[in-house]
Amino acid sequence: MTSPAKFRKDKEIVAEYETQVKEIRAQLVEQFKCLDQQCELRVQLLQDLQDFFRKKAEVEMDYSRNLEKLSERFLTKTRSTKDHQLKKEQSVLSPVNCWNLLLSQVKRESRDHATLSDLYLNNIIPRFAQVSEDSGRLFKKSKEVGVQLQEDLMKVLNELYAVMKTYHMYNTDSINSENKLKDAEKQEEKQMGRSGRQDDRQTPRSPDTLASIKTEEKHVRRSSVKKIEKMKEKRQAKYTENKLKAIKARNEYLLALEATNSCVFKYYIHDLSDIIDCCDLGYHASLHRALRTYLSAEMNVEASKHSGLEGLEGAAESLEPNGDKQRLMETYNNVFCPPMRFDFQSHMGDTMGLVCAQQPLEGELLQRCQQLQSRLSTLKIENEEVKKTMEATLSTIQDMVTVEDYEVSECFHHSNSMESVKSTMSQSFLSKPSLAKRRANQQETEHSCPAVALSFCLLFCYN
Amino acid sequence: MTSPAKFRKDKEIVAEYETQVKEIRAQLVEQFKCLDQQCELRVQLLQDLQDFFRKKAEVEMDYSRNLEKLSERFLTKTRSTKDHQLKKEQSVLSPVNCWNLLLSQVKRESRDHATLSDLYLNNIIPRFAQVSEDSGRLFKKSKEVGVQLQEDLMKVLNELYAVMKTYHMYNTDSINSENKLKDAEKQEEKQMGRSGRQDDRQTPRSPDTLASIKTEEKHVRRSSVKKIEKMKEKRQAKYTENKLKAIKARNEYLLALEATNSCVFKYYIHDLSDIIDCCDLGYHASLHRALRTYLSAEMNVEASKHSGLEGLEGAAESLEPNGDKQRLMETYNNVFCPPMRFDFQSHMGDTMGLVCAQQPLEGELLQRCQQLQSRLSTLKIENEEVKKTMEATLSTIQDMVTVEDYEVSECFHHSNSMESVKSTMSQSFLSKPSLAKRRANQQETEHSCPAVALSFCLLFCYN
Repeated sequence: MTSPAKFRKDKEIVAEYETQVKEIRAQLVEQFKCLDQQCELRVQLLQDLQDFFRKKAEVEMDYSRNLEKLSERFLTKTRSTKDHQLKKEQSVLSPVNCWNLLLSQVKRESRDHATLSDLYLNNIIPRFAQVSEDSGRLFKKSKEVGVQLQEDLMKVLNELYAVMKTYHMYNTDSINSENKLKDAEKQEEKQMGRSGRQDDRQTPRSPDTLASIKTEEKHVRRSSVKKIEKMKEKRQAKYTENKLKAIKARNEYLLALEATNSCVFKYYIHDLSDIIDCCDLGYHASLHRALRTYLSAEMNVEASKHSGLEGLEGAAESLEPNGDKQRLMETYNNVFCPPMRFDFQSHMGDTMGLVCAQQPLEGELLQRCQQLQSRLSTLKIENEEVKKTMEATLSTIQDMVTVEDYEVSECFHHSNSMESVKSTMSQSFLSKPSLAKRRANQQETEHSCPAVALSFCLLFCYN
Repeated sequence: MTSPAKFRKDKEIVAEYETQVKEIRAQLVEQFKCLDQQCELRVQLLQDLQDFFRKKAEVEMDYSRNLEKLSERFLTKTRSTKDHQLKKEQSVLSPVNCWNLLLSQVKRESRDHATLSDLYLNNIIPRFAQVSEDSGRLFKKSKEVGVQLQEDLMKVLNELYAVMKTYHMYNTDSINSENKLKDAEKQEEKQMGRSGRQDDRQTPRSPDTLASIKTEEKHVRRSSVKKIEKMKEKRQAKYTENKLKAIKARNEYLLALEATNSCVFKYYIHDLSDIIDCCDLGYHASLHRALRTYLSAEMNVEASKHSGLEGLEGAAESLEPNGDKQRLMETYNNVFCPPMRFDFQSHMGDTMGLVCAQQPLEGELLQRCQQLQSRLSTLKIENEEVKKTMEATLSTIQDMVTVEDYEVSECFHHSNSMESVKSTMSQSFLSKPSLAKRRANQQETEHSCPAVALSFCLLFCYN
């Protein structure tokens, strides 16, 4: 038997267990605190989302109303134009068509943003409200279950505590009864040793006294041995009983230990995860649907806008002077149609409707014809020159007015810093130095152009 | 010679020509009126476009500011959260990530619409202003050239008028001198006829008187014939001269007629078209560029928005409960990590750390084991049932929360009538009857779910 100082005291073991259980209890409390916080944050987030979309619905409605006002302002102006004929005539021209499409586009955007606002209010916000409600309800229910599970766990831990203490108690009992048994065995041993020694000692006493003493002693000794034996038996029985109890208690302790560890494992590894899963049940999916609704709405606004812009793009590509000129001339046909040819009006029955080139006029006419032909050749050469200059001028102007300077994507390159946006923006259309120079060139170039263009056909003129 | 009644009178011809010229002159005036009107309408359109974009720039700036305010309102709230640790922890969760991206998206849209507003003011409006300026300048110049061309045309028409009248005059002179010549020829014929009759009459007179009379008569007659011949010659010469003049005048008239018709043709077919071309020079191309700038700006806003929405879509697709649970448990590791296993604490040197199953415990333990096994089997069967119910319930809830009810494109179908938009809009998320019913089902279904889910693992519990 080793020294008791080597064994940890019951108190130490119990105190250690109590500390362990206290720590677990504290963790369990923290777990709910943490889940409570997550739930609060979730409720807050869903509230923020609702507030956000409520405010954004206002912003979109505002935008929609402003766009509506903007388009109405100009559409009313067009509608109120009293000259219906003029309105009709104008609408066939390609720039007017672009203008009308531009106003339609604004009207369309106005409607789309109103729809967006409506979807925020009547679809997306109710979704978030619902998610919030569902989350709260599920959290409450999950927490109830969690509380039950924690109580179950605590019960198990308390049971282990009790079982452990029982084991300690029964083991103490067993040790005590073992010690008592050992004491009895020692006494028996002592008793056995003493009677042996007394028999061996053979002290010099009278045989009678000796005999009577011996008989008396024998009687006492026998009853003492019997007593000790009886006690030993009793203690043996007690020890056996207590030993069994202790073993049983240890078995219970060992089984409880396994069960407790399994329960703790189950709670930490499965239950906690399940509680969180139950709190989350449908949360992500519902949030996903709400966000997808938002995305669908925005993407549809975008697609609608895009389709409108494509229409406008088509109209811009159809901006074409020749078609418009044709339409203008057709519309004002009475103003632009050439008059009847002037016919020869014979005078007083003058039947000759042709140039008479007989003698003596022939020579003169021939001479005049030659003069005209020579003038014509000169004009032709001059006109070729003029034509070349004009074509070059026109080509220059054409290049100027068709320069593809309309790509503004550089203004929309989002760098990570928001400051740099400003710098791209401030670069305005007219502030570009190259452009100012080009403008000056253009005016100079076009200066001569109409005169050149119109003088070009003077060939036909009679000199 | 036919009756003069058959010929149109000079006055008639002249009046007709004057009417024709008057009509042309009126047409020329109308042409400029028409071009003036087109120019005014063009200036008006360009003014409207500038006003429109100025107003739209305001609308966009307003929208941008409101979006900015909206995002700042919530970003400030997030920023001002004092618990930086909590903020950091939260930001790893997928719903918070979505929320942050949503705010970024609004910020991005705010910036884009500010850029749009800036582009309207500093690029698009100046373009329209420039087109307007160019148009005005070109129109003025084209009109100057047009006025010159019209004056030239009128000059030609007046010349034809003059030449025609000259032809009439000379032809009249020619006819008159022809008539006079014919008179002279008649007189001569008469004179000839009279002297012949006098010779044939042979009136009974004395030969002397007859002879003297004859001599005298012969003398008178001869001088008369001579006179008539002389007159005839003179008239013949006058007639020839006038006839030539008339033919020349007619030639001039015929040539002028051709030239005038050519000039009229050239003016109406070429010059008018050229004048319009000159008025239009660069107009459509510049308008096209201005509109393309607008389109480029809008398309870039759209592309930027789209790219932001795609990011948000990715985040929405990443809304995932398991990852969040994992992150939460990692973040609060101290709260969620399982405690140490409970180890067997041997009591007072009790070295036996295993369940003792020797006699007399064996029978009892075996019996208990059998009881536990039978309880386990029952629980297993029960749990299988519970598991099935739970899986069905979960699947039902899963189906409910993942139903793809987020497509809202129907709200954006633009019918031709604008009224029908309202009707699509009023159909809100919660007002759908199917949805209300589904909601009721969901709450009923989930009612049992957390309890079921959590009772599922009780198997591990020591009984």
